[in-house]
Amino acid sequence: MEKFINQALILARKAANKGEIPVGAVIVKNGKIIGEGYNKREQKQIATKHAEIIAIEKACKKLKSWRLDDCEIYVTLEPCPMCAGAIANARIKTLYYSAKEKTSNDNLLETILSSNRLNHKVEIKRCGGEKEAESLLKEFFKNKRKKSSN
Amino acid sequence: MEKFINQALILARKAANKGEIPVGAVIVKNGKIIGEGYNKREQKQIATKHAEIIAIEKACKKLKSWRLDDCEIYVTLEPCPMCAGAIANARIKTLYYSAKEKTSNDNLLETILSSNRLNHKVEIKRCGGEKEAESLLKEFFKNKRKKSSN
Repeated sequence: MEKFINQALILARKAANKGEIPVGAVIVKNGKIIGEGYNKREQKQIATKHAEIIAIEKACKKLKSWRLDDCEIYVTLEPCPMCAGAIANARIKTLYYSAKEKTSNDNLLETILSSNRLNHKVEIKRCGGEKEAESLLKEFFKNKRKKSSN
Repeated sequence: MEKFINQALILARKAANKGEIPVGAVIVKNGKIIGEGYNKREQKQIATKHAEIIAIEKACKKLKSWRLDDCEIYVTLEPCPMCAGAIANARIKTLYYSAKEKTSNDNLLETILSSNRLNHKVEIKRCGGEKEAESLLKEFFKNKRKKSSN
């Protein structure tokens, strides 16, 4: 598990280096990475280009199937509603994430992933790497504030 | 408003003709369509290729911006969590939808779109076209059941 979250953290750092909110995601099937991505919203100027969406699309292309049965996704930050929904739509088995979203005090992730609106239940687990994921995010927003106050 | 939901219904019919769950979406800015899409999950074999996501990505490309400020989206079916999240992520002003999702008895759409997890509040409105959108869906699932029982 550690190597996958480490890879997701490497991807998050890539995002930060390109001026993106640092989030990385890795999809694993049978112990092998079949898709990965990092946030590209600013570079692409497309609202949907979060790390998880990019990783899911790559994994679907790799498997030639929209069903990512028996796959795990490792993400450096608790997914937003769009990405949580995409993880369920792709029938991913288990979501592992590192940092908890600070603004989320309403268990929205759990509410979405346990809803009867979705045909599939995703297990939610933590996977370590919180400190690194959080410090990447903190550093990113600190630099951003610095830049905007100059 | 009627012409936009009619266009979304035309797109939903296109989806049905290609064996996809019939859902269509249209994005409008200043009275002009700037993006549209229909469900392509089966054709593309990619879990994220719902009508709304395709329409949002096209509109972002058109405006060269991930922010779809002051835009409206017209969808033939109440959006799933992924698409609801994408609509909020893209900062769309108003969501208009036709048919209500039958399996949704938990106000999940409203829960997602009013969450403090998102930086933006989307207005939710109905726009007519329910009967046509529902009959397209019913017919699609009836044909599907027929095929699978043969």
